[in-house]
Amino acid sequence: MSANSSSQQPKRPLTLLQKSLNQRVAVRLKSEIEYKGVMSNVDSYMNLILINAEEYLGSDLLANYGKVVIRGNNVLFIRLIKDF
Amino acid sequence: MSANSSSQQPKRPLTLLQKSLNQRVAVRLKSEIEYKGVMSNVDSYMNLILINAEEYLGSDLLANYGKVVIRGNNVLFIRLIKDF
Amino acid sequence: MSANSSSQQPKRPLTLLQKSLNQRVAVRLKSEIEYKGVMSNVDSYMNLILINAEEYLGSDLLANYGKVVIRGNNVLFIRLIKDF
Amino acid sequence: MSANSSSQQPKRPLTLLQKSLNQRVAVRLKSEIEYKGVMSNVDSYMNLILINAEEYLGSDLLANYGKVVIRGNNVLFIRLIKDF
Amino acid sequence: MSANSSSQQPKRPLTLLQKSLNQRVAVRLKSEIEYKGVMSNVDSYMNLILINAEEYLGSDLLANYGKVVIRGNNVLFIRLIKDF
Amino acid sequence: MSANSSSQQPKRPLTLLQKSLNQRVAVRLKSEIEYKGVMSNVDSYMNLILINAEEYLGSDLLANYGKVVIRGNNVLFIRLIKDF
Amino acid sequence: MSANSSSQQPKRPLTLLQKSLNQRVAVRLKSEIEYKGVMSNVDSYMNLILINAEEYLGSDLLANYGKVVIRGNNVLFIRLIKDF
Repeated sequence: MSANSSSQQPKRPLTLLQKSLNQRVAVRLKSEIEYKGVMSNVDSYMNLILINAEEYLGSDLLANYGKVVIRGNNVLFIRLIKDF
Repeated sequence: MSANSSSQQPKRPLTLLQKSLNQRVAVRLKSEIEYKGVMSNVDSYMNLILINAEEYLGSDLLANYGKVVIRGNNVLFIRLIKDF
Repeated sequence: MSANSSSQQPKRPLTLLQKSLNQRVAVRLKSEIEYKGVMSNVDSYMNLILINAEEYLGSDLLANYGKVVIRGNNVLFIRLIKDF
Repeated sequence: MSANSSSQQPKRPLTLLQKSLNQRVAVRLKSEIEYKGVMSNVDSYMNLILINAEEYLGSDLLANYGKVVIRGNNVLFIRLIKDF
Repeated sequence: MSANSSSQQPKRPLTLLQKSLNQRVAVRLKSEIEYKGVMSNVDSYMNLILINAEEYLGSDLLANYGKVVIRGNNVLFIRLIKDF
Repeated sequence: MSANSSSQQPKRPLTLLQKSLNQRVAVRLKSEIEYKGVMSNVDSYMNLILINAEEYLGSDLLANYGKVVIRGNNVLFIRLIKDF
Repeated sequence: MSANSSSQQPKRPLTLLQKSLNQRVAVRLKSEIEYKGVMSNVDSYMNLILINAEEYLGSDLLANYGKVVIRGNNVLFIRLIKDF
């Protein structure tokens, strides 16, 4: 399974995530909680490192965390905030 | 496992998704939430990239997102809006 | 793993599904929702393509869809409507 | 992994199911719903084909189905009605 | 992965189950329901055959079954009644 | 994947469990129920054998069991009582 | 799959965890319960050993434990307290 990364070709989902390192993302979990921060790294299971993570429920900021490793199987979606 | 793509042969589910890139789709998740947007790419796990994603609960538009990567294991079904 | 398809031999579950392409089926999901339509294709994970899909909760028709790809892990059972 | 099928040896669970084809069974799902019918075939994942399936909740008959393919991961247990 | 079965060595969990065939066991499922009976066989996934199975919720006997095949992924624990 | 077991090196989680056989442990399950007893053996899936198992909900002793095999996928954590 | 650990390269999530042994962490589980303690070791499944573990629900300290092995599949995220 190879992922073509020329500009004409759309990127595979995991390739897009790899190309978005050090961007700001919002990670929605199955529990509805959302974490916003800078995605320092991510692997193929969607385990990811978030820096300066903020924890939100809807628009309520619940907590500020430094560096968290989120286990991929809890992820609902990852939104690329800076990329759009 | 090969997927014959001649016009007489029905397409395998994952092959159909690959042939529907850059079409408008609605992605229903197990949580009943639905995301509509352009499916920029998808892999065999049904991880997918959605562009200009709109988040719906029933007919209520909840939010607009730019580019999201949805983790495949949350997907209930993918509806091809343009294909029909 | 081979599946004998002579008339005397019972078919394996996945073989029966493959032999039922383009038949009308009802797909019951774990969430109790049921989708009726023509099963255009199905793979070994029970991912399947449904054409002219109708969404039911009990006997209430909730919605009509064109072409949907249902992710196999949500499937409770697939009923062969035409085959009986 | 081989399963000895001489009369002295107890049968492995999946071997017992294979030897019980065309018998009447009751399939209890995790959702408490039970399906009774003739088990036409079954595979190692416990995907199974049920013929003349009756759907029960406790002792209430909910529906009659022709031929259904039940996805194995939903199965709680399979009771061999004729075998006892 | 080999399991030493000399008397000094503790048995691996799956080895202990294999050595307990034809003993009376109680199988607690995740749903709190418990099945008591003679464990005729079991495989490495904890799929098991129970003979003369009795279904209990707490101390209430709900039903008597002949021979059931329980799918291993539902098992919480297996208690060895005769072994103690 | 090798696990260094010299005294300076921290032990891998599964290696620590293997080195704790015949110690008293408390096994918390996802359902909040806790089992205390002597861990006679454990495998890499965290399937484990508990001897003289006591079943607790919070501080309430619910039942005494002889020898139980707990299926690993239900385990939340294993606490080493004697090790501390 | 190799993980580059030079100072310019961001670390993979599992590599970051390995480099954080003997640091203080907070482990949030899917059940909302949080365990704080020193992460003595962790494996690729996120099974981890926590020393001097404190159990919290929100800001309430529920219990103190000595040494616990947490099964990785229950982990929501691991927060590096000292690293920030």
